[in-house]
Amino acid sequence: MDQALPELNNPPKTRRGARTVRKLLDAAQEEFGSKGFHEASVAGITSAAGTAQGTFYIYFASKEELFRTLVFDLGRRLRDFLTENVDETTDRLTAEAQGMEAFIRFVRLYPDLYRIVLEAQFVDPEAFRLYFQDFGAAYRARCEAAATRGEIRVQDADAESWALMGISLFLGLRYGIWEAERDPGPVVASVMDMIANGLKPRPGEGGTA
Amino acid sequence: MDQALPELNNPPKTRRGARTVRKLLDAAQEEFGSKGFHEASVAGITSAAGTAQGTFYIYFASKEELFRTLVFDLGRRLRDFLTENVDETTDRLTAEAQGMEAFIRFVRLYPDLYRIVLEAQFVDPEAFRLYFQDFGAAYRARCEAAATRGEIRVQDADAESWALMGISLFLGLRYGIWEAERDPGPVVASVMDMIANGLKPRPGEGGTA
Repeated sequence: MDQALPELNNPPKTRRGARTVRKLLDAAQEEFGSKGFHEASVAGITSAAGTAQGTFYIYFASKEELFRTLVFDLGRRLRDFLTENVDETTDRLTAEAQGMEAFIRFVRLYPDLYRIVLEAQFVDPEAFRLYFQDFGAAYRARCEAAATRGEIRVQDADAESWALMGISLFLGLRYGIWEAERDPGPVVASVMDMIANGLKPRPGEGGTA
Repeated sequence: MDQALPELNNPPKTRRGARTVRKLLDAAQEEFGSKGFHEASVAGITSAAGTAQGTFYIYFASKEELFRTLVFDLGRRLRDFLTENVDETTDRLTAEAQGMEAFIRFVRLYPDLYRIVLEAQFVDPEAFRLYFQDFGAAYRARCEAAATRGEIRVQDADAESWALMGISLFLGLRYGIWEAERDPGPVVASVMDMIANGLKPRPGEGGTA
């Protein structure tokens, strides 16, 4: 209820309207997340939100528009979550580890949201692409700044940032959804060791740790 | 036509039957890949394959079963493609680079198949999970063997293999689908440098390359 609303074509002008939109978005998150886009229905969403279908169409032109709004809403919430849980004033590799663990925790807290973003690839490929391009651009900028400060070395910051995003996304699937009971700490530590130090054996070390 | 058939509940007993099944699978790949699972129809698939709907149901109980068969068929084809394009007798880091580039090329050759596997997460989560668990187990075994040979160092081979798969999957999306015209060589080289040598600055090197 207290969360800011995403941008809408016809934003609510009253507090009551804002509450209604938030209820619709929360109900949509539950419905899309549990049933998937195709099985979800506007009738199911308005029923769960306790609003009339006519009210729904004041704010959203269609189920598709609601879905797209949710995808961008999730992007904002994930960014806020990471801002709260990652200390960007520390060095990049420490922040990277914090971000990786925070992302796994975010997926555990909001598995519905995670599924909705991934399903966007099929429901709304444009929204999906924009979502990851926005994230990727911010990520790349942080990597480039850290390289300038000498905290990390990068060749192609764009490709490397993209690879790091792929790691988090896939760790989120496995350790956020499939094995949500596991302590993510050792997993993150091991993957971060690979990212920070690379896979080449170091002098005086055996191949296995 | 010459490709082996995946395992079916009721496998064809004649060469003509095998050709029919192959035609149905190829038509399904095209239909699922271009329209997505929900918009695709058995009628559309049989029409494209030039077979009767009754013939379809001799081999497949439903659109869902056909979809699941295709997911496993793709896994086999990707494994065959990687076997052809990756020299597993070389060291692990060289093979890793070959595999990463081969995967991007595979996605470019068969974007439909790539989309089908990713959509399986929503259509048939069990098939999706099995698909990646099978790949992950084989991948982990190769990493562990390489660590024993001293070619790489690993901490948690399971988590690190998973991270490497996440990188390929995400690079496949961007450089296999979205930017399919780009030379993947420099991207793979840059990401492989990160994987092999890590992100920490090396003595005597600046932060940027």
